[in-house]
Amino acid sequence: MTSTSYVVGVDFGTLSGRALVVAVEDGTEIASAESAYAHGVVTDTLPGQPGRRLPADWALQVPSDYVDVLRTAVPEAIRRAGIAPSDVIGIGTDFTACTMIPTTADGTPLCELPAYSDRPHAYVKLWKHHAAQGQADRINALAAERGEPWLRRYGGLLSSEWELAKGLQLFEEDPELYAAMDRWVEASDWIVWQLCGTYVRNASATGYKAVYQDGRYPDADFLTALHPSFGDFVNAHIAQPVAQLGECAGTLTAEAAAWTGLPEGIPVAVGNIDAHVTAPAAQAVDDGQMVAIMGTSTCHVMSSSVLREVPGMCGVVDGGIVAGRWGYEAGQSGVGDIFAWFVEHGAPPYVHTDAAAAGRTVHEHLTTLAADQAVGEHGLVALDWHNGNRSVLVDHGLSGVVLGQTLATRPEDVYRALIEATAFGTRTIIEAFVDSGVPVDELVVAGGLARNDLLMQIYSDVTRLPLSVVGSAQGPALGAALHAAVAAGAYADIRAAAKAMGSVRKAVYVPDEERALTYDRLYAEYVALHDHFGRGGNEVMHRLRALRDEASRNREEAR
Amino acid sequence: MTSTSYVVGVDFGTLSGRALVVAVEDGTEIASAESAYAHGVVTDTLPGQPGRRLPADWALQVPSDYVDVLRTAVPEAIRRAGIAPSDVIGIGTDFTACTMIPTTADGTPLCELPAYSDRPHAYVKLWKHHAAQGQADRINALAAERGEPWLRRYGGLLSSEWELAKGLQLFEEDPELYAAMDRWVEASDWIVWQLCGTYVRNASATGYKAVYQDGRYPDADFLTALHPSFGDFVNAHIAQPVAQLGECAGTLTAEAAAWTGLPEGIPVAVGNIDAHVTAPAAQAVDDGQMVAIMGTSTCHVMSSSVLREVPGMCGVVDGGIVAGRWGYEAGQSGVGDIFAWFVEHGAPPYVHTDAAAAGRTVHEHLTTLAADQAVGEHGLVALDWHNGNRSVLVDHGLSGVVLGQTLATRPEDVYRALIEATAFGTRTIIEAFVDSGVPVDELVVAGGLARNDLLMQIYSDVTRLPLSVVGSAQGPALGAALHAAVAAGAYADIRAAAKAMGSVRKAVYVPDEERALTYDRLYAEYVALHDHFGRGGNEVMHRLRALRDEASRNREEAR
Repeated sequence: MTSTSYVVGVDFGTLSGRALVVAVEDGTEIASAESAYAHGVVTDTLPGQPGRRLPADWALQVPSDYVDVLRTAVPEAIRRAGIAPSDVIGIGTDFTACTMIPTTADGTPLCELPAYSDRPHAYVKLWKHHAAQGQADRINALAAERGEPWLRRYGGLLSSEWELAKGLQLFEEDPELYAAMDRWVEASDWIVWQLCGTYVRNASATGYKAVYQDGRYPDADFLTALHPSFGDFVNAHIAQPVAQLGECAGTLTAEAAAWTGLPEGIPVAVGNIDAHVTAPAAQAVDDGQMVAIMGTSTCHVMSSSVLREVPGMCGVVDGGIVAGRWGYEAGQSGVGDIFAWFVEHGAPPYVHTDAAAAGRTVHEHLTTLAADQAVGEHGLVALDWHNGNRSVLVDHGLSGVVLGQTLATRPEDVYRALIEATAFGTRTIIEAFVDSGVPVDELVVAGGLARNDLLMQIYSDVTRLPLSVVGSAQGPALGAALHAAVAAGAYADIRAAAKAMGSVRKAVYVPDEERALTYDRLYAEYVALHDHFGRGGNEVMHRLRALRDEASRNREEAR
Repeated sequence: MTSTSYVVGVDFGTLSGRALVVAVEDGTEIASAESAYAHGVVTDTLPGQPGRRLPADWALQVPSDYVDVLRTAVPEAIRRAGIAPSDVIGIGTDFTACTMIPTTADGTPLCELPAYSDRPHAYVKLWKHHAAQGQADRINALAAERGEPWLRRYGGLLSSEWELAKGLQLFEEDPELYAAMDRWVEASDWIVWQLCGTYVRNASATGYKAVYQDGRYPDADFLTALHPSFGDFVNAHIAQPVAQLGECAGTLTAEAAAWTGLPEGIPVAVGNIDAHVTAPAAQAVDDGQMVAIMGTSTCHVMSSSVLREVPGMCGVVDGGIVAGRWGYEAGQSGVGDIFAWFVEHGAPPYVHTDAAAAGRTVHEHLTTLAADQAVGEHGLVALDWHNGNRSVLVDHGLSGVVLGQTLATRPEDVYRALIEATAFGTRTIIEAFVDSGVPVDELVVAGGLARNDLLMQIYSDVTRLPLSVVGSAQGPALGAALHAAVAAGAYADIRAAAKAMGSVRKAVYVPDEERALTYDRLYAEYVALHDHFGRGGNEVMHRLRALRDEASRNREEAR
């Protein structure tokens, strides 16, 4: 390694890909470039098929958009960096997950075959494709009934977003296409396949999304019980050698070198998941360092030397974040999107007017007003279940609550109560880890909400933890670059690379004990409501949801 | 009585007085005139005393404003009616209550004496003067401790609005003025005193507001226990002959004849309360006819042949609505003001814009959108306690709840859920009456909310009762006129006058059994939450309120 060595990290998000050129020595970010997916998220009609509408809850993508990122964003980032491409010693990637591509044996997406380009199931099923809930429900019921041991590693519930449910949906809804499919590929592995010509599964997505535990996938008995002809799903379409994060998957092909302008033959790192790759970018690879990627929802990832069954976690995977440690994942299914919903549908005109007059966004304005309050002064407590509850209750049939309103309640009061509710939700997750024997000593925050000082301070006060903030504005791309450096042999392992190249501002927010004591009282109220409505004390939310669905159906039928 | 006989009813509201000329024969409303009080509601500074600010929760009035109504609105109504004043055979009034005036022995308000015009306690304490809560709390605690038998007639709680609490506040805060006060007079009786020169207490206000039960007021022992020098409060300042509603208090004095332009010597009816006088105006004087006067809050009044102790009622008074029957009163402390609060502080800009584009008010627009829903389709249930709960829980420390929100919840969903919550609140009151042995067969609605078709239908569906609507837009003034007719001898009693002169549209809304069945399910959810949060299952609302007050104090001190 020389002082002029660089790596490229490419972060494949939901709407665009972003390439980042990083100095291997110290992680300095030299330049970046972004490329929006030409087809974005396909929810209405397939490309070139305007007459055919997709059903509700579908979310597809077009794989050539990913390759276009390699063709455009990578060379543009190199150009902006002003470096010689020959100084780039490796490339790494991260991807949304679980995002699945049906391909032929050589990795060609089925949607690129003229015979199948008009079939929805031939396209990429993006992580937020939610049309396989029926399949997920059956998978979970069967797994629980059979007492499948792997179920506990996922908090007792597999998501409809994951490989099995999405694959079963394809199998059931388009058997002909399923028959034509050879491989059912995570996009995080598919992009690596495109770069180096080798299909190798990454340990992270394989563990979290393909239910690979202790060297095994769900067995053929289980699959056959789902459907008599589904028994070879894993062996025929899923199974593939699994590599650890930071390993070298192969070297850049001539074709990919031509796309990217990078030297042929440089190491390509094994694929990775966008949330998980952020942890080493924030130097959060040790026990007790919980990373919270906070945006519309929050994803919590943490490495630990110990294996425990934490109630309500999304998954625990050997080497899921860094090789050699157990990678834990948990989540809150609604965070920033609850605040956005409130601003759009619950903030009255005068709030918008006052915000504009003050030159602030409505979020900023409500935050400013809310920041002027003492803890508890609004008299409210809320439950942050507007999008259900992932961790720790694993119940998407739950819904939101605001309690304590008077005629004197104002929008900033509710806004603050909603922020606090999400902080309380994070505390329930932390307590579930701690109570299960997985200590949490620090919260390392990434994502857009880290910019809200009030929110961050509330999280620190509520959790009594110091809050560190990832130093890079492009944490996932930096994390991907860091993996490239390890794959290229510049560092012995991810932990060493994280130390040299990662970036974090430590303890930017620290708890105030006086506020924390008052929050203990509010949190006790939250927990009482949480348990009453979430653990069977009153099943009103499920009944209301059932009544809602029933009423909605009746009304449609009456029309 | 001839076919050209008329009576005048004068309704003294919170902001203005309204005179109505009515045909005695059939209750035809000939003409009306309104006169706003020059001083309105005095909450900031006394008239002519700009430097002196009133404390929070004070609400005063100026008694000469009431006389001005007699001077202006009455003659103007007569003029508009185009009738000969000599054809007017009687005058009746109704008033807000409990609204109290400290006077000399001849009824002169103390605030009209130059020596006292700068003293806040010398003015009228309007019904919504809420600065005597401390006194009310002590009165209730002492009454409960001593097991005073009258306490049960008021649902276990006297209001801070009533004569005793307001009088005790005056006694404690301005002893010199208290020493100068001869009489502590209900405005409903004071205005009659001005008209006929005779001070006679009306059975309604005396029973509901002065705690007069079974011929006795709270005794001297009790008053002395409140304060050693307060023992003669009742005998010295309150006690006065009590007359039944519809009786003649006296005849119009020469002075009052000059004010009003009406013939000297015509009968003046005994005073009355605005809510209660509405019952006969709506022909709702029989057992089982509950009148709901629905505005910012709702007042329920109903006559019955039986005396029962209904949990959470505001009061039961012999002859409180019509002589010879028990008059029951109950209440919901927040109804229309909850909807108004939501529109002002919870409806986003697009709702306002869409409403304006459709040429509707925001209330009308939200109602229109909500009316398009099937029962239960919004997936919500709310508790209507934003202003506390009067009946049946009698707990002003309770607060509001909305439960069931998702990211798909829209403003009209919440609006409808709040309407439904108030309907459920009415149903709990009706059930408390029925369960106590006081049947309710019909809901007769008066007040501004009767104009909302959706709301009215929801109330009918939720309560499974037919909803009738008072026929007059000026129910209280019509009721007052009707009492004048009885006082003048045109009818034998209020029941007969109500039949001839009252006006009601019967069963304008009738329950739909299918919707009622679905509402039974939502009501069961309401009751579960009602009992959980209102009957000790979880005292979170009281704790949040205490924390709010504590936080608010701390913040003030920190400044």
